[in-house]
Amino acid sequence: MNATVITIGDEILIGQIVDTNSAWIGQKFSELGVKLYEIISVGDDAVQIKEALNRARTSSSIVIMTGGLGPTKDDITKKTLVEYFNSELVLNEEVWERMKQIFEKRGLKVLEMNRSQAMIPKDCTMLPNQRGTAQGMWFEKEKVVFISMPGVPHEMKHLMESQVLPKLKEKFSFPQIIHSTIMTAGAGESVIANMLSDFENQLPENFKLAYLPDLGTVKLRLTASGDTKELNEEAQAQKEKMKAILGNYFYSEGEEKLEKVIGSMLIERNETVSCAESCTGGYIAHLFTSVPGSSKYFEGGIVSYSYDVKEKLLGVKNATLNNVGAVSEECVREMLQGLLKTTFTTYGIAVSGIAGPDGATTDKPVGTVWIAVGSSTNIVARKFQFFPSRMENIRVFSNAALNLLRLFIQGKLS
Amino acid sequence: MNATVITIGDEILIGQIVDTNSAWIGQKFSELGVKLYEIISVGDDAVQIKEALNRARTSSSIVIMTGGLGPTKDDITKKTLVEYFNSELVLNEEVWERMKQIFEKRGLKVLEMNRSQAMIPKDCTMLPNQRGTAQGMWFEKEKVVFISMPGVPHEMKHLMESQVLPKLKEKFSFPQIIHSTIMTAGAGESVIANMLSDFENQLPENFKLAYLPDLGTVKLRLTASGDTKELNEEAQAQKEKMKAILGNYFYSEGEEKLEKVIGSMLIERNETVSCAESCTGGYIAHLFTSVPGSSKYFEGGIVSYSYDVKEKLLGVKNATLNNVGAVSEECVREMLQGLLKTTFTTYGIAVSGIAGPDGATTDKPVGTVWIAVGSSTNIVARKFQFFPSRMENIRVFSNAALNLLRLFIQGKLS
Repeated sequence: MNATVITIGDEILIGQIVDTNSAWIGQKFSELGVKLYEIISVGDDAVQIKEALNRARTSSSIVIMTGGLGPTKDDITKKTLVEYFNSELVLNEEVWERMKQIFEKRGLKVLEMNRSQAMIPKDCTMLPNQRGTAQGMWFEKEKVVFISMPGVPHEMKHLMESQVLPKLKEKFSFPQIIHSTIMTAGAGESVIANMLSDFENQLPENFKLAYLPDLGTVKLRLTASGDTKELNEEAQAQKEKMKAILGNYFYSEGEEKLEKVIGSMLIERNETVSCAESCTGGYIAHLFTSVPGSSKYFEGGIVSYSYDVKEKLLGVKNATLNNVGAVSEECVREMLQGLLKTTFTTYGIAVSGIAGPDGATTDKPVGTVWIAVGSSTNIVARKFQFFPSRMENIRVFSNAALNLLRLFIQGKLS
Repeated sequence: MNATVITIGDEILIGQIVDTNSAWIGQKFSELGVKLYEIISVGDDAVQIKEALNRARTSSSIVIMTGGLGPTKDDITKKTLVEYFNSELVLNEEVWERMKQIFEKRGLKVLEMNRSQAMIPKDCTMLPNQRGTAQGMWFEKEKVVFISMPGVPHEMKHLMESQVLPKLKEKFSFPQIIHSTIMTAGAGESVIANMLSDFENQLPENFKLAYLPDLGTVKLRLTASGDTKELNEEAQAQKEKMKAILGNYFYSEGEEKLEKVIGSMLIERNETVSCAESCTGGYIAHLFTSVPGSSKYFEGGIVSYSYDVKEKLLGVKNATLNNVGAVSEECVREMLQGLLKTTFTTYGIAVSGIAGPDGATTDKPVGTVWIAVGSSTNIVARKFQFFPSRMENIRVFSNAALNLLRLFIQGKLS
């Protein structure tokens, strides 16, 4: 079964916004076992929209449209669909009342322009939108389902998850597909692929393994499809086999990031963490604090960008900085010791490296980083060599540091 | 004049990657005065690629393809183009030699698979790729130009800027278009739009103003088109008029972010900065340090997430935390005083607020933030109220803090 996505809006074509909706919908369909045949992006233009619909219905049983449902005169998707399906617009009293209430609550006057958003085509099933004033629409014609949703990503996702996907599952019978996601850290894609090459060769034909690398972590997605009753059990068994091979590189099932997984471990153990950062410049603290509720275990951090701050706030010895430099095992050990003396957290992270583009020396090229993790009684330090680009290094250094801490907490580092 | 973009790759359709190439190309064409008629994303499938090409050439004089040029057997774009244009592949000795050298340098063995990337269709103009092993191709047929480039964004951008755009400007005569970009901070889109409403009304018909808001900043793009000699002067004059109206909200021409603009100001003045962050959790330090060369003026920061760290490292009074709480004018003033006593920087920023979803009280809802900026002799504090979402708040709080600092350094805050 095929589907086509049509994204509508001049702002897409002039590059004012990146269309992230298509990829999200593509993922959902891929999980469902539906093949996305094509993505078409057109402007707010009736002729182009109709042309795209004509094309889509020849290849696909499901046609998803996003965008062009706003209240301004640029937005012509609904009007065009009314023409396309020979329908007519009728005021939906319920939607209109709710809209007036929303505007009142915000202290705004509802305008005639907004009333147009309560007008719904007679021949469609309305998909009520709890997140905005543009309603979703579901049309059926000659065995093809046409769905129109607003382009605002969180509104579209809400409609897809709460209504479109359940209704599609009701109408069509999709193949049985089981997805298992495994997160790894500490090795690149090629290392992981090499470890799993025998595993991949023994996989039955109805299994597929995908690698999704992201600066220091690799997400693995194992997909199983088939009609057998045993599929779930088989998928579970293959997943466990894969986890066993991955050993310490495996850190989580599902899609959780390292900072989230570490946070859950710390909450469970009633322990705390802090960080001392040079080259990562606050990014590790940012990752920790991007997790809601992180104040339960994250006490704080020191961004010691200058020698001065390293000495004054972390007690790094002047001799260390002068003799072996800031990017050294001695320096990150002293940074971590100093940090733990101040914050009294259970664990700490210290990072010093060269993110680039400047700051390299002959024996310390851009991408060199020293990381120390540990507690007041035991500190482990490691050196890594990463990429040439500054922003990539900041992210990959941070993930490497979080992964070392994860291994330390789990007692897997010595 | 129209153009069509065709992005090729199964990974786009299953949502494994977000297609950012199209938006980037759309922007470049929009700046050139070329209308992007349509974006089509298809899989690695010869029939689909040819279908898309057939469609594109009916509407467009320029057809841009990205993707499907890698060395693996999935990548069939080149083979398909050879069929489509009735051409044949010929080994390009120069490319092949360069490729062997690159592999040798990296200590890798060049494979037969890689040789296929040195095979170039006879009937195209090759666009040499300095960033990778997949070469660009330029075909012409019946007055339509077809350009194929690799899908890796930095390779595609390199080819577009170094070869495709210059060659297109040579071949076609594009309308004269002048873009001016103005950055503002400290007010939302509606406030800015309101200020500029008379300005917009007086704009000649050949001028267009676009608003591109982004959490705390609004980018304004003024586009002028026309054939007159005076266009450049007129555009300059309108831009200056706009800057005068925007007053203190205007902070830069071009597309520079606040942290970059502040950095340039500090380098020029030979001054330094540090920051003390609670709710922004290291994000302001990260913004400062994301700018290459920031070690010249950014000394460091303290992420004081817990009360303990606020007291110990920043000297915030226990009484302040107990009586008025961490989200208060008193607290951010004490944080900033403590910070400057430790780091001795010329300027400092201190931020404390409620990013959410937890931590709100009746009089301090999620989105409340206190920001202090200043020097050892003068501190200014302001309270703001922003959004309900955690990640948006972290970003908008950070931009608000940077903007206050910018105004302070410029002597515009009292």
